[in-house]
Amino acid sequence: MSGNTFGTLFRVTSFGESHGPAIGCVVDGCPPGLPLAAADIQAALDRRKPGTSRHVTQRREPDTVEILSGVFEERTTGAPVALLIRNRDQRSRDYNDIADTFRPGHADYTWWQKYGIRDYRGGGRASARETAVRVAAGAIARKWLAERFGVGIRGCVAQIGEVAVPFGSWDEVGRNPFFVSNAALLPRLETYLDELRREGDSIGARLSIVASGVPVGWGEPVFDRLDADIACAMMGINAVKGVEIGAGFASVSQRGSVHGDELTREGFLSNNAGGVLGGVSSGQDIVVSLAVKPAASIRIARRSINRAGDAVTVGTEGRHDPCVGIRAVPVAEAMLALVLIDHALRHRAQCGDVQTATPKIAGSVDGRRGA
Amino acid sequence: MSGNTFGTLFRVTSFGESHGPAIGCVVDGCPPGLPLAAADIQAALDRRKPGTSRHVTQRREPDTVEILSGVFEERTTGAPVALLIRNRDQRSRDYNDIADTFRPGHADYTWWQKYGIRDYRGGGRASARETAVRVAAGAIARKWLAERFGVGIRGCVAQIGEVAVPFGSWDEVGRNPFFVSNAALLPRLETYLDELRREGDSIGARLSIVASGVPVGWGEPVFDRLDADIACAMMGINAVKGVEIGAGFASVSQRGSVHGDELTREGFLSNNAGGVLGGVSSGQDIVVSLAVKPAASIRIARRSINRAGDAVTVGTEGRHDPCVGIRAVPVAEAMLALVLIDHALRHRAQCGDVQTATPKIAGSVDGRRGA
Amino acid sequence: MSGNTFGTLFRVTSFGESHGPAIGCVVDGCPPGLPLAAADIQAALDRRKPGTSRHVTQRREPDTVEILSGVFEERTTGAPVALLIRNRDQRSRDYNDIADTFRPGHADYTWWQKYGIRDYRGGGRASARETAVRVAAGAIARKWLAERFGVGIRGCVAQIGEVAVPFGSWDEVGRNPFFVSNAALLPRLETYLDELRREGDSIGARLSIVASGVPVGWGEPVFDRLDADIACAMMGINAVKGVEIGAGFASVSQRGSVHGDELTREGFLSNNAGGVLGGVSSGQDIVVSLAVKPAASIRIARRSINRAGDAVTVGTEGRHDPCVGIRAVPVAEAMLALVLIDHALRHRAQCGDVQTATPKIAGSVDGRRGA
Amino acid sequence: MSGNTFGTLFRVTSFGESHGPAIGCVVDGCPPGLPLAAADIQAALDRRKPGTSRHVTQRREPDTVEILSGVFEERTTGAPVALLIRNRDQRSRDYNDIADTFRPGHADYTWWQKYGIRDYRGGGRASARETAVRVAAGAIARKWLAERFGVGIRGCVAQIGEVAVPFGSWDEVGRNPFFVSNAALLPRLETYLDELRREGDSIGARLSIVASGVPVGWGEPVFDRLDADIACAMMGINAVKGVEIGAGFASVSQRGSVHGDELTREGFLSNNAGGVLGGVSSGQDIVVSLAVKPAASIRIARRSINRAGDAVTVGTEGRHDPCVGIRAVPVAEAMLALVLIDHALRHRAQCGDVQTATPKIAGSVDGRRGA
Repeated sequence: MSGNTFGTLFRVTSFGESHGPAIGCVVDGCPPGLPLAAADIQAALDRRKPGTSRHVTQRREPDTVEILSGVFEERTTGAPVALLIRNRDQRSRDYNDIADTFRPGHADYTWWQKYGIRDYRGGGRASARETAVRVAAGAIARKWLAERFGVGIRGCVAQIGEVAVPFGSWDEVGRNPFFVSNAALLPRLETYLDELRREGDSIGARLSIVASGVPVGWGEPVFDRLDADIACAMMGINAVKGVEIGAGFASVSQRGSVHGDELTREGFLSNNAGGVLGGVSSGQDIVVSLAVKPAASIRIARRSINRAGDAVTVGTEGRHDPCVGIRAVPVAEAMLALVLIDHALRHRAQCGDVQTATPKIAGSVDGRRGA
Repeated sequence: MSGNTFGTLFRVTSFGESHGPAIGCVVDGCPPGLPLAAADIQAALDRRKPGTSRHVTQRREPDTVEILSGVFEERTTGAPVALLIRNRDQRSRDYNDIADTFRPGHADYTWWQKYGIRDYRGGGRASARETAVRVAAGAIARKWLAERFGVGIRGCVAQIGEVAVPFGSWDEVGRNPFFVSNAALLPRLETYLDELRREGDSIGARLSIVASGVPVGWGEPVFDRLDADIACAMMGINAVKGVEIGAGFASVSQRGSVHGDELTREGFLSNNAGGVLGGVSSGQDIVVSLAVKPAASIRIARRSINRAGDAVTVGTEGRHDPCVGIRAVPVAEAMLALVLIDHALRHRAQCGDVQTATPKIAGSVDGRRGA
Repeated sequence: MSGNTFGTLFRVTSFGESHGPAIGCVVDGCPPGLPLAAADIQAALDRRKPGTSRHVTQRREPDTVEILSGVFEERTTGAPVALLIRNRDQRSRDYNDIADTFRPGHADYTWWQKYGIRDYRGGGRASARETAVRVAAGAIARKWLAERFGVGIRGCVAQIGEVAVPFGSWDEVGRNPFFVSNAALLPRLETYLDELRREGDSIGARLSIVASGVPVGWGEPVFDRLDADIACAMMGINAVKGVEIGAGFASVSQRGSVHGDELTREGFLSNNAGGVLGGVSSGQDIVVSLAVKPAASIRIARRSINRAGDAVTVGTEGRHDPCVGIRAVPVAEAMLALVLIDHALRHRAQCGDVQTATPKIAGSVDGRRGA
Repeated sequence: MSGNTFGTLFRVTSFGESHGPAIGCVVDGCPPGLPLAAADIQAALDRRKPGTSRHVTQRREPDTVEILSGVFEERTTGAPVALLIRNRDQRSRDYNDIADTFRPGHADYTWWQKYGIRDYRGGGRASARETAVRVAAGAIARKWLAERFGVGIRGCVAQIGEVAVPFGSWDEVGRNPFFVSNAALLPRLETYLDELRREGDSIGARLSIVASGVPVGWGEPVFDRLDADIACAMMGINAVKGVEIGAGFASVSQRGSVHGDELTREGFLSNNAGGVLGGVSSGQDIVVSLAVKPAASIRIARRSINRAGDAVTVGTEGRHDPCVGIRAVPVAEAMLALVLIDHALRHRAQCGDVQTATPKIAGSVDGRRGA
């Protein structure tokens, strides 16, 4: 099937193109009785909204969300919640230049060969604009996870290009346009990105996402492990090329006597596992790291071919993010929320009657170490 | 649902515990008419079979596979293919010591809290023994992919602990017990692992898996992207903590003008994408890298708790792999095959009628660079 | 999951309530390149539109459909096609009377107990209004089935209450407000329904739906048989209480020597199978019959309880169909189309390479016998 | 996908052919902690076992089931439960006569055209033998439904050919080879079936299946309604051509003022709904009726074609059921159990926190009226 539905029980079906009339989604399987208003979703959308600083695309979209169904007297009814976001700023400029050519590093070539037709305007369905929908759906998931289980999800940019950002504080993340946790790096990042923009180039980024308060027991081995579904969700975000859980690639050179997190009645003594053991949540923070590649739409001219297969050079003018990783933070947080609520529901479906006498030990890791 | 089925159209449902009567799977959705005999599957199983060298678990299992259904006169009929592998070497020793305690870094604690009951014998369902089933199912997928599309899948161990292995040749991989491509490193690895075994410790590994000959067009955006499903499949293998496609985390510090693989009529000029663009295969090699953590079952005693929540120390005697990453190579190859055949079928379901006049450009990257 | 998605590969996700802002759906998995305009869908919607005669609900809804995505330059792109229908005529009258009570024969009681909250306005999500969405999605499926395979789908009302309608001609069906094939019965049906309306009562109906031109081979045994999925689709329409394929319940008293349709090179000699053998289409007409119960919303007062569990009497004023079966014809046709396109795609996914030397024998049955 | 998996959360994946080495299934998603032994399943299998009277096939199969996984110390662990039944009595006679021809009313022709290969021995995968697996899986579902919710499922043959059987008592059903509830009809049925066997013909049957104790609230509108999934499950049983819920086709001529079951605090006053309103269980008995066609394998010679398309006559010697409907009773009971447990789990996944102050009114209908 064309894979535009995410989740098994909490299901998000996404639609829409960058320059079509609208984008949106249907959220099916939301537990009934959850207090929900458009404002709850709008707040999340505003965090990833374009045009908020000179360091992201200058496209002006209000991203106003309308709830079309599934909510009655400001509570969810258990019926599908449809969300609609009208596209407003479809710049009228001519796209014919890119209609016929394929940008290196972009979906242009592969989608064209797969479907034999493509809406090239602004990248069409392949545009990062589609991720607004995930943020909107994720907002519903986050609200339920917070109210029902006290789960909190936070993310930040941990590295942009060569510039690694030592973790500062979660509070700082919301105060700057780069979603970084450490204000000391801001001047350097400003210069770095201004430079890139001048050069008409783009750069990658590393993101760190942490979920706190996840109870032990979520995840469905052997295939639908919590970490496997998280990896799927993260790698399914535009431009992501790598995913780590906990120690990730560092575990390659770790010894078992170091990697394995020791258990005490007071909690785990470390979190190399990143909150997932045997594909099931441990009660510790879920710690995810991802690599976002540099955007393919850059001004610098590069070699490519056109539909006829002839050699051409392609440079993309227009309103693009020099570092798409920045606005990917709310998207990655949302995807993690979607995975978690889905597994919360799956777990109680099969194991709703399970109880053990064994104490549920506290996770010992704070967000800081997680990041 | 309990997640023991993998795939959407080519579906593998796995069952079995380490010390139960048998392990096996049902493969549903296999195209009819594929020549298939038990020997085809047995060859694959023998590659990951335990007890083949002193560097892997000494458990002796013939891993003899029986085809129970779906094959008639040595060709698949389109009906489900059930595969059965009887467990033979269930060492009779007493497991009561681990029955009551939780190994650091192992599924013991999380599965116990999730299910309220567990088959602790040899790890039960959480044992790496379950992965034999994936190799068996993958053998069917690989055969069809090879015969129908000429797809070839190869993998090797690229790093064990601190020992990185520069790529040598694919031919070498089959000749040594470490699945490495470079014979020059063998003496060092032997010493390294003998040392570890003496110390009763374990170590992680990095694997590289490459699929060649995959045509352009496989993958189902926006959620079921080829790379997303590969990430899910790889992170779903026991002990995997990280997954990269193509440049992976290296893309964090790459510029767009470097990362984006240029296209020419003769082929792509690089493969930072790892063969996937916009979630759809490009025709280049699919290049996957994964991090495998060190095994949790080690002799070195570590702190933990028991079912009652009391502090204990746990050290695991018995027949364990000092580096589980080694035998994970055939498993990862198999999982990649399962993802690819599933997407081959999904693609032709929706896009079976698509044709374009645009030439399908050759992938330019050889397995070597991929690895 | 809340079950608002229909289909495996051609997937329709429905949303919306009777008196909310809008109803609609997302159609995912549509093959790319299909010519499609809003007008194609509008024509289908107009057939089931309310208020077209005094014999159906007098609610006035233009049912104007907007295509929000998945179509570019009037052809499908393979991306999800989102369809939106705004609700216009939400009568402002007070619903508080039914907010608190449960209509006999209606979803009121069961949905309230399941979800603990309900949008009672006009039946909310349980309203037959939701079926407009199925008709819209079905229009896309029908267009592809017709253009790709020459499949045609027709339906009619075969019985209303005690009045059985001998099959006349398909042409007649479109000419009268009852979707019957035989004009001779019209005067009697007019009187019959006027009578019912005066009495404030409702009545059931039997529908006959026929698909012609379906090639041999569609259906996925052993569980996802074509007839099983048709039964699911039909029983999933509001108010349907029975489904038959081919001879249906008449086969109970048939002998094997009568029931089994003989094969000749020129075609089958009968169609007791209703076009499905062993869960797979035979090439004959797919013949489906269904029973639609009388509507629960009637003026006649009946005994029930309210939310507090106290005894009440309930009579429903307002704009209701005395025979909901009438407008169910386009809905049933649409659902059959959705099942067929889904199986067309599923079949070519697994069996796209299958060829036999055996001639595909012609179906011998005309629509008339089908009905 | 090839549709050999049934269910969304409680998933049964079936495999095996009539004359292959074995049949069986994997049951995934079973709640952990359920007491389960092979004997629990064996008892159910013995009810549908062939060769128990002269009125069913004389094939001798012990149908001994082996539990391969998912059970530890006689309780389910939450891991997949694999069940294996070896085929014993594969009569060695030559099948070449039917290998090349297509039985009227049988899957022979359609499966051959679909797959291009078929295991013709004893019907291969299309054989009713496959249904033993459903009974085995259903036994697990029934045990959980009974222990967790007190749900009971019973079925009987209500009509064989022209012989309708007025409901007698459920106790009688287990005492005769026809699964009928009324001993008075036994002599007539014996004669009737002996006659058919002499003539080498077969006959259809009508079955009635009733589930008691199902709580209000199971079912997932708008598509995955409880009745829709029941219809799918029943129509998915070999040879079933019609399904009714409650009043079924009788509702066509019912008035709304008669059909709608009135509610009182003491319970519903009738059960025309058959225990399902708006696709959700009402707390009344779930009442299902189904039509089973006469078996296609009969001795009487009939016209058909062979693989080359040439005209032939086909008569089937061998061990066949003159009325396959008889042994379908335990199969239909099992399928109903599979639908119910799946919806029990789906319901608590989404609505596990729902509570209402409205009393859950008693179902007023006993099994007798149900049948």
